[in-house]
Amino acid sequence: MFSVTYHITCYQGESIEEKSRWICLEQSVELPLKVIPDYILKAIPGKIQQINPITDVKWEVEIAWPLENIGDDSTQFLNVLYGNISLKRGIKVVHVEWEPLASLFNGPSFGITGVREKFNISDRPMACAVLKPMGFSAGQLAERATQFSAGGIDFIKDDHGLANQSYAPFDDRVRMVVEALKDSKARDGYRAAYFPNITVSASRLQERYNQAAELGADGVMVLPDLCGYEAMQELAASPVELPIIAHPSFSGTFVTDPAHGFTPAFLYGELYRAFGADCTVYPNAGGRFSFSLDNCKKLNEAARNRTSPFKPMLPMPGGGMKRETIPHWMKVYGKDTIFLMGASLLQHPTGIRRASEEVRRILESG
Amino acid sequence: MFSVTYHITCYQGESIEEKSRWICLEQSVELPLKVIPDYILKAIPGKIQQINPITDVKWEVEIAWPLENIGDDSTQFLNVLYGNISLKRGIKVVHVEWEPLASLFNGPSFGITGVREKFNISDRPMACAVLKPMGFSAGQLAERATQFSAGGIDFIKDDHGLANQSYAPFDDRVRMVVEALKDSKARDGYRAAYFPNITVSASRLQERYNQAAELGADGVMVLPDLCGYEAMQELAASPVELPIIAHPSFSGTFVTDPAHGFTPAFLYGELYRAFGADCTVYPNAGGRFSFSLDNCKKLNEAARNRTSPFKPMLPMPGGGMKRETIPHWMKVYGKDTIFLMGASLLQHPTGIRRASEEVRRILESG
Repeated sequence: MFSVTYHITCYQGESIEEKSRWICLEQSVELPLKVIPDYILKAIPGKIQQINPITDVKWEVEIAWPLENIGDDSTQFLNVLYGNISLKRGIKVVHVEWEPLASLFNGPSFGITGVREKFNISDRPMACAVLKPMGFSAGQLAERATQFSAGGIDFIKDDHGLANQSYAPFDDRVRMVVEALKDSKARDGYRAAYFPNITVSASRLQERYNQAAELGADGVMVLPDLCGYEAMQELAASPVELPIIAHPSFSGTFVTDPAHGFTPAFLYGELYRAFGADCTVYPNAGGRFSFSLDNCKKLNEAARNRTSPFKPMLPMPGGGMKRETIPHWMKVYGKDTIFLMGASLLQHPTGIRRASEEVRRILESG
Repeated sequence: MFSVTYHITCYQGESIEEKSRWICLEQSVELPLKVIPDYILKAIPGKIQQINPITDVKWEVEIAWPLENIGDDSTQFLNVLYGNISLKRGIKVVHVEWEPLASLFNGPSFGITGVREKFNISDRPMACAVLKPMGFSAGQLAERATQFSAGGIDFIKDDHGLANQSYAPFDDRVRMVVEALKDSKARDGYRAAYFPNITVSASRLQERYNQAAELGADGVMVLPDLCGYEAMQELAASPVELPIIAHPSFSGTFVTDPAHGFTPAFLYGELYRAFGADCTVYPNAGGRFSFSLDNCKKLNEAARNRTSPFKPMLPMPGGGMKRETIPHWMKVYGKDTIFLMGASLLQHPTGIRRASEEVRRILESG
């Protein structure tokens, strides 16, 4: 058995006992009690472990599920976790007990320590610049990358909107950015690590991952809610070893309803981590989106905690991160954080390189 | 260009003009105006076509997007459609103009006419029985299938929770159900068509699809929100031709928030249709979930309309459909409907075969 913890809200006419029992049946046998043989009823449905009140209308409920209902298949895990109940309302997944599931998932292949070692980054906070905008040519993006790198930025990732458009086709873009960064290294003795966005339909993802590796990329970015969590898991288990940044594009409806879906900590912390992300991008509190500070802190904790059977993962707060607020966020989030910066690096009065240098100085002062 | 229609809700401090312009930038260049060169600003962001009020706080907004932002990639279409804005609130996609996108999508390979022809079903409403519960052996499921078939049910599909569990492994299950239905045919001169659930991680989906075909299945069921919309599209375009039933497992958070996500008509009608589903399962009004009658009717319309460039698709209302209410729903939904029945067929006083016969009589009387 493995247990799942839900925060369940009851609406008019619902009782917490009935709603919890309904989940136990709906996510397994999917039949009313009277047409289920006794031996099936004993073995297959979820078993309620605990029901504890949070408010007058909300409860924390723990349900244990038979591992046999999943079989050998992480897709079926997601189906048991949140298949039909996704269509109900007032059911928020907050935590999964991963230990019994450890054989089904690998977790990150690098993790925090692995990323620091691979890129030789000492025990300090890090920064990642975003290559954009969509519409730039591969050459323009490569030129921009050299400026970030010259200023000492640790990582450069493609904007999540850069796919394989004619403006800067995937192959050209990766080749030219990698070449430009090699030149930077020869000139400055330093180069940033480059993570292109390889997201494409799952059936072609491994091919694009291998292509990124062959072209000399240092890691990759994937959008798991578009290419599939299992596809990310398969990359993490691939013999070609590149660290993975997971980006939350297309995932928003799981987290925007406070009473339904997944908590940000569960989705971008626990779930992305189980499925093999080394770094997890999320919209920081106070930015263009609406995550609360409390949710961001819980997400960081879920990404990094040592209670999970998987390697710790690096949180990557972004979505409006500003140079001048990094000292503040370094104090709040700590050193095992990658600050993700887009527009702010493009708006320095003396240019992108100076902006990047300023960020690097801040990170090293921390 | 192709246009997307949104219903946008404004919350405190938001204006509809600003929020619409924000979408145009966020889903393309993802930068503030002041750091975007003019020629990029002209070519890349979405262009607002119309803003029309619906209520005091809600507007219908049409935005046109450059096809070039998508390139050759249906995954990137989803990214442009609802990538980062999924993380905002109050943005509901209600319609896409598909004509300019027709080269990127195939739509259903059978459609309503193709399904009727393949299974030789005259111009009447149809029924599909659900094989369950999880926990039954392959032999027990096969026995149940013969009872549905003997009663004259048109289609039998696996419950969406049947994957590759030890209770009834995929291979055994498909083999035994197909064999049992062959025997039915020899005995009764009729057999139902069988659609096993082939859902698995996208990288293994084509293999399981081919396996289903080799074992003699008549069609397949997939859970596109688990295996990926593009994976379903690839099956629909596969040289091995089996009709596809799409099931909404794991998709619920897109539709449960009335102000955010997708409308049921858009997701289960337009989007599943573009990505190649021949039949679309949804929870009917008045059942275990909470779709309104109005939403169900709009979904049927989006599945079947002739204004789309893709073949019409069969709506499959389920989630608590009862034998005794089928005459009512036949009047409301019309003949191009497959009524999906689970528990109701198991609860007839004289057994499953009689229940199925009763349903068949109702369908033929319509």
